[in-house]
Amino acid sequence: MTVSPRVTVWNEFQHEQKNPKVAAIYPTGIHGAIAQHLQSEGFSVQTATLDQPEHGLTDAVLAQTDVLIWWGHVAHDQVQDKVVDKVHRRVLEGMGLIALHSSHFSKIFKRLMGTSGNLKWRDSGDRERLWVIVPGHPIAAGLGECVEIPAEEMYGEPFDVPTPDTLVFISWFSGGEVFRSGCCYRRGRGQIFYFRPGDQAYPTYHQPQVLQVITNAVRWAAPAA
Amino acid sequence: MTVSPRVTVWNEFQHEQKNPKVAAIYPTGIHGAIAQHLQSEGFSVQTATLDQPEHGLTDAVLAQTDVLIWWGHVAHDQVQDKVVDKVHRRVLEGMGLIALHSSHFSKIFKRLMGTSGNLKWRDSGDRERLWVIVPGHPIAAGLGECVEIPAEEMYGEPFDVPTPDTLVFISWFSGGEVFRSGCCYRRGRGQIFYFRPGDQAYPTYHQPQVLQVITNAVRWAAPAA
Amino acid sequence: MTVSPRVTVWNEFQHEQKNPKVAAIYPTGIHGAIAQHLQSEGFSVQTATLDQPEHGLTDAVLAQTDVLIWWGHVAHDQVQDKVVDKVHRRVLEGMGLIALHSSHFSKIFKRLMGTSGNLKWRDSGDRERLWVIVPGHPIAAGLGECVEIPAEEMYGEPFDVPTPDTLVFISWFSGGEVFRSGCCYRRGRGQIFYFRPGDQAYPTYHQPQVLQVITNAVRWAAPAA
Amino acid sequence: MTVSPRVTVWNEFQHEQKNPKVAAIYPTGIHGAIAQHLQSEGFSVQTATLDQPEHGLTDAVLAQTDVLIWWGHVAHDQVQDKVVDKVHRRVLEGMGLIALHSSHFSKIFKRLMGTSGNLKWRDSGDRERLWVIVPGHPIAAGLGECVEIPAEEMYGEPFDVPTPDTLVFISWFSGGEVFRSGCCYRRGRGQIFYFRPGDQAYPTYHQPQVLQVITNAVRWAAPAA
Repeated sequence: MTVSPRVTVWNEFQHEQKNPKVAAIYPTGIHGAIAQHLQSEGFSVQTATLDQPEHGLTDAVLAQTDVLIWWGHVAHDQVQDKVVDKVHRRVLEGMGLIALHSSHFSKIFKRLMGTSGNLKWRDSGDRERLWVIVPGHPIAAGLGECVEIPAEEMYGEPFDVPTPDTLVFISWFSGGEVFRSGCCYRRGRGQIFYFRPGDQAYPTYHQPQVLQVITNAVRWAAPAA
Repeated sequence: MTVSPRVTVWNEFQHEQKNPKVAAIYPTGIHGAIAQHLQSEGFSVQTATLDQPEHGLTDAVLAQTDVLIWWGHVAHDQVQDKVVDKVHRRVLEGMGLIALHSSHFSKIFKRLMGTSGNLKWRDSGDRERLWVIVPGHPIAAGLGECVEIPAEEMYGEPFDVPTPDTLVFISWFSGGEVFRSGCCYRRGRGQIFYFRPGDQAYPTYHQPQVLQVITNAVRWAAPAA
Repeated sequence: MTVSPRVTVWNEFQHEQKNPKVAAIYPTGIHGAIAQHLQSEGFSVQTATLDQPEHGLTDAVLAQTDVLIWWGHVAHDQVQDKVVDKVHRRVLEGMGLIALHSSHFSKIFKRLMGTSGNLKWRDSGDRERLWVIVPGHPIAAGLGECVEIPAEEMYGEPFDVPTPDTLVFISWFSGGEVFRSGCCYRRGRGQIFYFRPGDQAYPTYHQPQVLQVITNAVRWAAPAA
Repeated sequence: MTVSPRVTVWNEFQHEQKNPKVAAIYPTGIHGAIAQHLQSEGFSVQTATLDQPEHGLTDAVLAQTDVLIWWGHVAHDQVQDKVVDKVHRRVLEGMGLIALHSSHFSKIFKRLMGTSGNLKWRDSGDRERLWVIVPGHPIAAGLGECVEIPAEEMYGEPFDVPTPDTLVFISWFSGGEVFRSGCCYRRGRGQIFYFRPGDQAYPTYHQPQVLQVITNAVRWAAPAA
């Protein structure tokens, strides 16, 4: 295991620049919030966004990334195929990938899954509980039996993805739905973790347990030495 | 696929004989209700109960059973190990097994799983929704996107079983829990389906969609010709 | 289960037109040999090839196909992305797909897997034995414990695909390699089977046991009614 | 991850005391050879054998064991059920288990698998090649693409075990068989690894690559901190 994985946090960074409510929640962007947390955990972290040349994911950046975190929502189509090709290749070579929330529809996640990524959704501030299905799994380390998020966008089944190699979390929503919220995959030499929370309209990535999951997932997804 | 699988419905048949409320729901026993439905679907069905010699599961009965349905709750320990050995052997040879509800703690289910079968539970008449996770799966045939049961005992994660080969249903409970309610396994040549509903205190096995799942599961679990 | 699945056998049909040795083995093309067999089994069968308009896979053809069989080798890049998109969508909707031999590098298979499809290979006429790993699986119906092919191209591990939902066959090669030769996947509502044999230089698709596997796989991959 | 897992190597230790040829290969027993290697890797190691009180697996020993290695062959039936119960419980609680070679028929392995553990075998000194199926998996760390063992007992499919969560190695045998030789399972909180080599009649546990796999498996099977 790499002693300290090098993490790149990629964010399309659109909502935060256009919507004052989102900017108020994430003044330095979703990537900023996640990066700051991971730095405080001792990881070597950089960020990259859509508007940068090559979306900030140059060959040099990718070559020095052990784990790539991905957040996208309204601008999936603006991500260049050439960059997706490179990220895909790096994952197959062993770079870990953590796909967050609406990244279920990102080009890179769909490329790796081979499916549509379709799901149900409703933006009504449901209460969400992420139940730990595999107690003792490294991605659930330090959590209790469930993580409760006071208000979130709802995602519901069926979620059109391949059966996860390991299903770590299942979400319960107050409105009546369930969702496979923590899904582990291996593709080539790369470890992939899909993690359902955080919609841009809620301060989910400020919640300590959610950040704990991301920390755990980075350690899990990092390539073996 | 056997054109018409021969089904044996096994029930410990204790609650119905001791508790008038349960007897009122299932006058012919839980086994009677399920058997009657399966007969109406054209299957060849027999029943067997704990109090019968060899619990009704003689070599002759087992030899002529393609799919065994199992319901037990308060009398798991009274099932003779010798009978469990025989049922186990038949499953490995190819007999299908459908383990219902509290049978998660039956000797035969624990023998086949290798785990404790532990779970959370609460008998508070929760509303339950079984969401279909694998649309198009034969066990979900003829259902909509979910099956709603007005009141049931709650079962919650973590459920101590091996990762299912296929997870067909996840339950949502109004009290805030989730559960892997439809779990497919293959052990030896035998197909096994664990199906979470119905507690003896609720008329769950009179609900058409629940019976549809059992019908589907019988077809799925029957050995290939 | 569809009583009689409608099958379309797609072949790039290049070797047979350019190489007299291959033409001698498959005078009506690889697609012709497979189609003829499936017709004799009572299936409704049509064929399609690369050179036809839209590669023979028009909307009308795809709409009436329950199971698509795919053989490609030297012309993967000539398959139009637009056609691949349509086939991909149909698989996610429920059309079965059987990818044969060198189709591990076809656009449609790589799209569905999300991986490179890389493997080892050597064209040295190795003796191959396909061992049945899951006795009683419908795709192994009617076979003995293994299928021996006198001479074939060798494919060796590592095979860069996601872990199969079910691994039905593992091949042994006389030169010292092994290969996961029968791999089942579900993507969306579609069932996918990758089957390793047969290279165009060997009469593999004339061998009864190999044809039996294809027959079995068609029945397995057909969508539920 | 426990910095240095505490390992207990259990061996029935029968062949070595009764058969001079085996004793010549393993003068300190199979357990001695494995323990010596693991000590040289810096692990804290103890051994236990059948003839000791409680087979050397007292509550105190089990409580201080992070990973238990098991080798048994001719004396499976002499292992007391009470001890098997305790080991089983400890695995579900999180103790790792590495089951070696003929331990496929041990009580503890069958208890955890729920199947018969049946397989084919032939003691003819076949050449064996263990191919790495999942490059980059921690259990394959430091190996090349395959491990070749000059002479071993042959084990062949079908191997009656549940589908492994991860299949790390597939063996090729010179006599014509294949075998799933490195199988990962999770049961409860416990990680289980079945590793096929080495029969008592061959010096397999003196081969550096085989010992490397055992080292890797100990690290993989150790419970998360």
